[in-house]
Amino acid sequence: MSEILVVGSLAYDSIQTPSGKVDRALGGSANYFSLAASLFAPVRVVGVVGEDYESQHVDLLQKRKVDLSGMTKVPGKTFHWSGFYEAGNMNEAKTLATELNVFEKFDPRLPQHYQDSKLVFLANISPDLQLKVLEQVQKPLFVGMDTMNFWISSKLDDLKKVLSKVDVVLINEGEAMMLTGAKNAISAAPKLCEMGPQALVIKRGEYGFVLYSRQGGYFILPAFPISEVIDPTGAGDTFAGGFFGYLASLGRKPEINDLKAACVQGSMLASFTIQDFSVNALSKVTLTMVEERLSQYKKVIS
Amino acid sequence: MSEILVVGSLAYDSIQTPSGKVDRALGGSANYFSLAASLFAPVRVVGVVGEDYESQHVDLLQKRKVDLSGMTKVPGKTFHWSGFYEAGNMNEAKTLATELNVFEKFDPRLPQHYQDSKLVFLANISPDLQLKVLEQVQKPLFVGMDTMNFWISSKLDDLKKVLSKVDVVLINEGEAMMLTGAKNAISAAPKLCEMGPQALVIKRGEYGFVLYSRQGGYFILPAFPISEVIDPTGAGDTFAGGFFGYLASLGRKPEINDLKAACVQGSMLASFTIQDFSVNALSKVTLTMVEERLSQYKKVIS
Repeated sequence: MSEILVVGSLAYDSIQTPSGKVDRALGGSANYFSLAASLFAPVRVVGVVGEDYESQHVDLLQKRKVDLSGMTKVPGKTFHWSGFYEAGNMNEAKTLATELNVFEKFDPRLPQHYQDSKLVFLANISPDLQLKVLEQVQKPLFVGMDTMNFWISSKLDDLKKVLSKVDVVLINEGEAMMLTGAKNAISAAPKLCEMGPQALVIKRGEYGFVLYSRQGGYFILPAFPISEVIDPTGAGDTFAGGFFGYLASLGRKPEINDLKAACVQGSMLASFTIQDFSVNALSKVTLTMVEERLSQYKKVIS
Repeated sequence: MSEILVVGSLAYDSIQTPSGKVDRALGGSANYFSLAASLFAPVRVVGVVGEDYESQHVDLLQKRKVDLSGMTKVPGKTFHWSGFYEAGNMNEAKTLATELNVFEKFDPRLPQHYQDSKLVFLANISPDLQLKVLEQVQKPLFVGMDTMNFWISSKLDDLKKVLSKVDVVLINEGEAMMLTGAKNAISAAPKLCEMGPQALVIKRGEYGFVLYSRQGGYFILPAFPISEVIDPTGAGDTFAGGFFGYLASLGRKPEINDLKAACVQGSMLASFTIQDFSVNALSKVTLTMVEERLSQYKKVIS
């Protein structure tokens, strides 16, 4: 069993989907990631929140024994994202507003006891902050990252530096194409591996994922079938949490087959997240529920 | 081994894709279907062509022992479709022009020896013509159909009649949603089965397929990974050809596991079609090539 360090956003989200809406509900990549990963292994969070961050949201992670000593509370308001999804296109979030608030001056400092973390996930934040976190970890065994179109357009040089230092990238299909200039996920995959990582996971929303590794080639599976998607927000971060959580539970340097199994675990976890708004469904998931879903999934694909 | 009857278009296509373009190349659902299905079992075609239909295109099917005695040549020009695909959205064909030509007055008549066909595929043509063909078959064992948005909007009543008479529907994802009012393929599937068929296959282009049956629930797999998609035209009809060809080769009423294997065969065949324009790649495929691809595919999904 290894410890996982995650740096990412702790946020409030206002979201409208064809199923309804929520205002200032708990969100942020580090929250989704931690709730998923902590089912499998100990998680340490680096992040920043504002004075409006509610204690019940701190409690939620602490009940899962997530280490929050790297979470700082500073004057100002918590990061706030608002956006919507349209019927028939639930794979694409449309942003209405991104209020960085306290995140704007976020300068991640790792508590000393975080520095020996063996697994590190650099969620979707500015690449220079991702680098800053990575530099503070002594000897990580396995490092992963996510990114988005905004950083690809605005901070490509920094992003390329991060890419050269990580073992795996978890990224959306559209962003994988944008980053490589490829016309589809299949041709984007090897191109992205040329930028540094040994492996990458392309997240395809309702269509599942593509894992590609230099050593093992392609591994592709569909998502668990969900009839009613309520809110896809956080599905990618939940996937990453399940993926890293599973790998950490093994307590060794991951091999190809471990990455495959980790993708399947991430996929199962993400299928819960989308069944309700915010972290409502995810926060109630147990490992037994994941195992049950996994056994249903095996029937769907065999 | 059973005989397959297919009714559909024999056409010329003018197509532009990010990889290039072709003018008046061989196309039409019955051509793609027959080239794929004839690898496995005997195929009988019902269709109509104009005086401009080239003898080399008749030869192509005859070399595969496809029975063309139900193909009539009449005064006028062959059905002609022109359209294009845009980079990053190869799953959606945009139509520039549909010239029905001789197809406009097509009145399908089955040669007497066609009437005992055990498997029937009603490719994407007007639902009243689909019905007309089906009425001329004596005791079909297994009937499938395809359709498209145009018929869903313009001939819904006839379409519902056909739906109530078939065993399986093979349909695109967008059209499955349109026909059922569902927001995604997963919820469309059981709704579509309520309209008649025991099973349906939702074709998802580069994302693979969803097979759903009342008896067996969902079976979902990704497409075979293809780095460069040259021309997706005909992929769905090729899938249907591989699907029906495989089922016909069994020579019995298909069971759930047969439908699953048939989907995989259809998927393999379709992955060849998209690697070149028109039927260029498909017409060169052998069963050995399909088996090789299948063994690669098994590694990708396991």
